[in-house]
Amino acid sequence: MSFTTPDPVAVIGASGALGFGLAIRLARVGVPIVIGSRDAERAQETAERAAAAIPEGSFSAHDNAGAAQAASTVILSVPFRNQSETLTNLKGALAAGQLLIDATVPLAAAVSGKATRMLGVWQGSAAQQAQEMVPEGVRVVSALHTVSAASLADLAHPLEQDVLVCGDSRADKREAAALIERIEGLRCVDCGRLEMARITESLTALLISINVRYKTRAGMKITGLAGDLW
Amino acid sequence: MSFTTPDPVAVIGASGALGFGLAIRLARVGVPIVIGSRDAERAQETAERAAAAIPEGSFSAHDNAGAAQAASTVILSVPFRNQSETLTNLKGALAAGQLLIDATVPLAAAVSGKATRMLGVWQGSAAQQAQEMVPEGVRVVSALHTVSAASLADLAHPLEQDVLVCGDSRADKREAAALIERIEGLRCVDCGRLEMARITESLTALLISINVRYKTRAGMKITGLAGDLW
Repeated sequence: MSFTTPDPVAVIGASGALGFGLAIRLARVGVPIVIGSRDAERAQETAERAAAAIPEGSFSAHDNAGAAQAASTVILSVPFRNQSETLTNLKGALAAGQLLIDATVPLAAAVSGKATRMLGVWQGSAAQQAQEMVPEGVRVVSALHTVSAASLADLAHPLEQDVLVCGDSRADKREAAALIERIEGLRCVDCGRLEMARITESLTALLISINVRYKTRAGMKITGLAGDLW
Repeated sequence: MSFTTPDPVAVIGASGALGFGLAIRLARVGVPIVIGSRDAERAQETAERAAAAIPEGSFSAHDNAGAAQAASTVILSVPFRNQSETLTNLKGALAAGQLLIDATVPLAAAVSGKATRMLGVWQGSAAQQAQEMVPEGVRVVSALHTVSAASLADLAHPLEQDVLVCGDSRADKREAAALIERIEGLRCVDCGRLEMARITESLTALLISINVRYKTRAGMKITGLAGDLW
């Protein structure tokens, strides 16, 4: 049991299903959450919904730029359709030294295609697009593509799965992993450099395909790993 | 315990690490194996090596075309560098009705690149290239990309992992799964249409990246699935 309060974490796109699930799961283990949405009013509504789910949680509400300025760690959880626009709008809000955990997935659904298909992203992956767009010195890590939003939001649901983490700095990945692993049942696995996000992002499409077939909320676990991975 | 001998299975590229591991694991559970190699002499050597590993196994040896003609189920386990040439050479040997389980992975290593990177394949994936190249009526299923060759060959190693199966026909996938699941510790998961092989093939590169970091032989398991998947 720790008696110090952890640093706050901003969730950009917290009104969406994945962002909301992450916000309440992290709040439940004592992480103060800064709820970010495109407009501050929507953020306020989401913060109220989150507080209803986790009465003991700490939630503040801002528009995305305000949220990004209120925490040193920022989770980017927006539809791919909005990722580029969001990052453009955050150029003045993000600053060197911040950790950006990008969870964006370039599903073809972004352009009215299938959710089991991926778009080609010029930079290679959504995470690499984020890396290109953030101000210099913002540390980008890619993670959280294989965790079902519905499972996160369903607090009674045991997660028991892995989170695949990619990034160019081992220290940054370790920092992201330490945050994510606060959520019970999630184990983080270092999958290599940020470019590997091309593969990990596509696993969302794969799991959606599996979910359609088996009417479940599939996740992923890497076998052959034991002990402390970080 | 079944008292009927299962149908033989041909392994094209059985002299390679993955092919060899599959051959001996299947032979151990009573499947007669037709060892295929580019030349018959190499096939004979491989069959002897396999028989040394599994003395009770049934192995015959042929060049690849001879092997493909000797079994109704054919596992294609060749380096991507050789996949197209091999399938061209098999055009006269494969026939409508055969089941081809393609395990090819288009790693960039095929063109002296990294084994953690993928090549773009015009058809979308190695499996789709196989589908385009086989004679009409040959049923192509994609599988076995995430099972470590070293773990298969190490008979004392418990596998305990999933095999991700893609294909356009549920019946063909079920047939492939029934064969693969004879190997103890392997569970097959239906991942959707053959085009999903674009994603499942890339998991080899992802697991290689994980193996480099953790000095292990990682595999994959899908969470959230229970009971009979087929």
